[in-house]
Amino acid sequence: MAALLNHIVQALGGALHGSPDRSIHRLAPLDTAGPADLSFVSHPRYARQIDTTQAGVLIVPPALQAAASARGDCIVTDDPYLYFARLTQWWKQQHAAAQPAGIHPSAVVDASAVVGEGVSIGPFAVVGPGVRLGNGVSLGAHTVLEAGVAVGEGSRLYGQVTVREACSLGQRCIVHPGVVIGADGFGFAPHGGQWIKIEQLGAVRIGDDVEIGANCCIDRGALDDTVIGNGVKLDNLIQIGHNVKIGDHTAMAGCVGVAGSATIGARCTVGGGAIVLGHLTLADGVHISAASVVTRSILQPGQYTGMFPIDDNAAWEKNAASLKQLNRLRERLKAAEHAIAQALHKNTD
Amino acid sequence: MAALLNHIVQALGGALHGSPDRSIHRLAPLDTAGPADLSFVSHPRYARQIDTTQAGVLIVPPALQAAASARGDCIVTDDPYLYFARLTQWWKQQHAAAQPAGIHPSAVVDASAVVGEGVSIGPFAVVGPGVRLGNGVSLGAHTVLEAGVAVGEGSRLYGQVTVREACSLGQRCIVHPGVVIGADGFGFAPHGGQWIKIEQLGAVRIGDDVEIGANCCIDRGALDDTVIGNGVKLDNLIQIGHNVKIGDHTAMAGCVGVAGSATIGARCTVGGGAIVLGHLTLADGVHISAASVVTRSILQPGQYTGMFPIDDNAAWEKNAASLKQLNRLRERLKAAEHAIAQALHKNTD
Amino acid sequence: MAALLNHIVQALGGALHGSPDRSIHRLAPLDTAGPADLSFVSHPRYARQIDTTQAGVLIVPPALQAAASARGDCIVTDDPYLYFARLTQWWKQQHAAAQPAGIHPSAVVDASAVVGEGVSIGPFAVVGPGVRLGNGVSLGAHTVLEAGVAVGEGSRLYGQVTVREACSLGQRCIVHPGVVIGADGFGFAPHGGQWIKIEQLGAVRIGDDVEIGANCCIDRGALDDTVIGNGVKLDNLIQIGHNVKIGDHTAMAGCVGVAGSATIGARCTVGGGAIVLGHLTLADGVHISAASVVTRSILQPGQYTGMFPIDDNAAWEKNAASLKQLNRLRERLKAAEHAIAQALHKNTD
Repeated sequence: MAALLNHIVQALGGALHGSPDRSIHRLAPLDTAGPADLSFVSHPRYARQIDTTQAGVLIVPPALQAAASARGDCIVTDDPYLYFARLTQWWKQQHAAAQPAGIHPSAVVDASAVVGEGVSIGPFAVVGPGVRLGNGVSLGAHTVLEAGVAVGEGSRLYGQVTVREACSLGQRCIVHPGVVIGADGFGFAPHGGQWIKIEQLGAVRIGDDVEIGANCCIDRGALDDTVIGNGVKLDNLIQIGHNVKIGDHTAMAGCVGVAGSATIGARCTVGGGAIVLGHLTLADGVHISAASVVTRSILQPGQYTGMFPIDDNAAWEKNAASLKQLNRLRERLKAAEHAIAQALHKNTD
Repeated sequence: MAALLNHIVQALGGALHGSPDRSIHRLAPLDTAGPADLSFVSHPRYARQIDTTQAGVLIVPPALQAAASARGDCIVTDDPYLYFARLTQWWKQQHAAAQPAGIHPSAVVDASAVVGEGVSIGPFAVVGPGVRLGNGVSLGAHTVLEAGVAVGEGSRLYGQVTVREACSLGQRCIVHPGVVIGADGFGFAPHGGQWIKIEQLGAVRIGDDVEIGANCCIDRGALDDTVIGNGVKLDNLIQIGHNVKIGDHTAMAGCVGVAGSATIGARCTVGGGAIVLGHLTLADGVHISAASVVTRSILQPGQYTGMFPIDDNAAWEKNAASLKQLNRLRERLKAAEHAIAQALHKNTD
Repeated sequence: MAALLNHIVQALGGALHGSPDRSIHRLAPLDTAGPADLSFVSHPRYARQIDTTQAGVLIVPPALQAAASARGDCIVTDDPYLYFARLTQWWKQQHAAAQPAGIHPSAVVDASAVVGEGVSIGPFAVVGPGVRLGNGVSLGAHTVLEAGVAVGEGSRLYGQVTVREACSLGQRCIVHPGVVIGADGFGFAPHGGQWIKIEQLGAVRIGDDVEIGANCCIDRGALDDTVIGNGVKLDNLIQIGHNVKIGDHTAMAGCVGVAGSATIGARCTVGGGAIVLGHLTLADGVHISAASVVTRSILQPGQYTGMFPIDDNAAWEKNAASLKQLNRLRERLKAAEHAIAQALHKNTD
């Protein structure tokens, strides 16, 4: 794999300071890049890295052009990180094998399914009655779409994905292997010490440009639908309960759990391992730190955290033991304050 | 989809106050229900919702009949939530396409498997030697049952489920996509800085009426079996370690992890994201709050919690920093109390 | 299933004190073992268990030989737990049906794949172009290996496993069902309130003797590879982010999440449900307790913990409320100390 610098700049813009015919063999991080590699420095505060990297070519912001040029070739652009993101897309497009259109002979596609142009369906995929696949949709090996599922133009579902009946995905979505969309939400009525199942009659509706990480689960709604907004990005192993609504362009890191009927705003971020309890609301622009537990609605944008600080085990044991007496400590402190006040009062008598 | 009110009452009971010929188009939550929809108010404390919902018909408890009748049709029943649960089951049965019995021609079913009457086996399913499937069992696409697996009458396994050798499920179980039952438990003997595998010779035994959410994992026992009691309900992405025993009718929310050899009682609940450590016991009727970590046996029923309260990040940072000095604060408080006592003593001299 | 004692000792060593022709029906834990079963006591501190177990034969350390012999047959060995681990392996080998070599006729194997001797490929497996499978590799039903994947000699991948393009596994690895190796890492550049995908151009490289639990996810690197060292053991439902490096013989319990670009040393252990944040380093020999959140690099070996101690809910509520005022309590304590000092000073005036 290789690409010429001037091809990159022709495709993506930026001001090239250096040799247009230079060949780039790899996109690489600053610390492992070599003389044939292209790397980037996202911000002037990382200027120091220019001196230590072995990268042959750097993408830099205008403020770093002089420093970068002093050591070799560079591409100057206002937002190097964005440029780099687009470059990875261009690079992959140049080098990845094209997904072959067509339906693998082993796939089971119901006669009533509506299949757009340029659709690719992998080995052992199962496409149920009434499924609609937009143009250019790609379904990986073993993917199962149940009756009535709709997948918008250009969306790609990798292998082993399950989409249960009547759920829908928008355009340009990416769904990684092992994802389960539309399994039953967790709903039971207690009765005589047992649990009576509440059938889940809603579905899942997913917007455009959504990416869903490997082995995530998004449950169907109990009555209304579970709804994932446009541009939402979910990392791996995330659980989204029934009736949840997630606003546009919200992103969640791995291992997050969102309980049923939570409503999460737009442009939120949820850190890895965080738990959002059910039947609550997060406003737009709320940011939850990793491993925090959201137990109440949060109606003001901002960063919110709740996590026990890690410590060496011996120190933790002492502090944890004290924590279990914290309320008593508070009362003792109050008593001490009272005694002090009395003592001072006596003194001034 | 639609149903007449009198068909509902004939099937499920309850006292109908209103027009038997009224057509219901949808079961709906109170806040999104329209005039053609049926909703429910579970308890007199929610009486206010009767005034604001647009639902055409309400299921209500006797205490709310007058209020409900004043605005339109209603069904009166002692436990509206239970009635509603059964109604969702009836509704689904009326409207869902029947699962076709029979074995899809692409499925690989070993000649020695014993297949009951009315069994449905989906495309690309794999049924190993000696597997026994009770009457009415349904296996989704791509489901794999290894040698010697037994599935009881009426149980339904959705697609992409794996049940490894010699594991068994009872009657009327529901297993959602991506579940792995009977993978090896996590057992190793340390030796010279390496880990020597302990082969897992037990299996998994699952009772009747158990529901297992998408992408859950239930490991096989090391020597004895891992055992899941009757009526247990597991949400998605739950990990059950080897040798665990879970009592009847216990329910766990999503993302719970139960470590090896834990014994959990009957009618317990475990909140989402909670972690139960291994080799401990929870009595019957223990309820663990979401995201709590169970580090010791709990032998008295009740609600137990351990979770860092979420706060805005700036406040959290201050409190977390103080928490790391909590034990020192406790000692300082003790010293202060001592000094006060001395001062007061001096004063009274 | 049964085995004679002298066959066991011939295969695994140890000093047999008892009847060589005795038949063992089962390996069993001490508390459920019967007279036909073999069990073990790992350490002299468990000597008491010798008196209560019904096990017919015991594996014991030398210090317990007298006590064990006083009650029946025993095998004496320096490390009974290690002996027991090897015995489970021997037992499984004796009793498990041999995995049939050969390619199931339903599998789709690309003509350019290089398949070693004695390889077993299960039903509906998909093996892409350029895949290399070492001698004795076993691929379960529905396993998908994309283009360019390499699997080392003797490795076993169970069913429903996905390995995406260009990723590699070493020799003697075990990969449990539902695992996804090489899905895209979670990388996006923010731009105008949206997320621009950073294509993940790296792969995953997994060493020898690695075991990966059911439904785990190991993401491919953004530019360089994600690297899992030799002898690493991962329990179920673990998330490993892109660019992570894990050192040799490190073990992680279930539900752990490791965020992108974390570097974890050799011979570390990470307890269940722990979260390791990204772009940090754990030294060799660091042990993280269950459910702890690693928010900073840890460069000294040792045990580290951060977890809210569980309590009955009422006590927790009081302590959690006080915790939210902990920094204020600290300031109040400081004020109280100051007042005491002043009062004492006055008294001594």
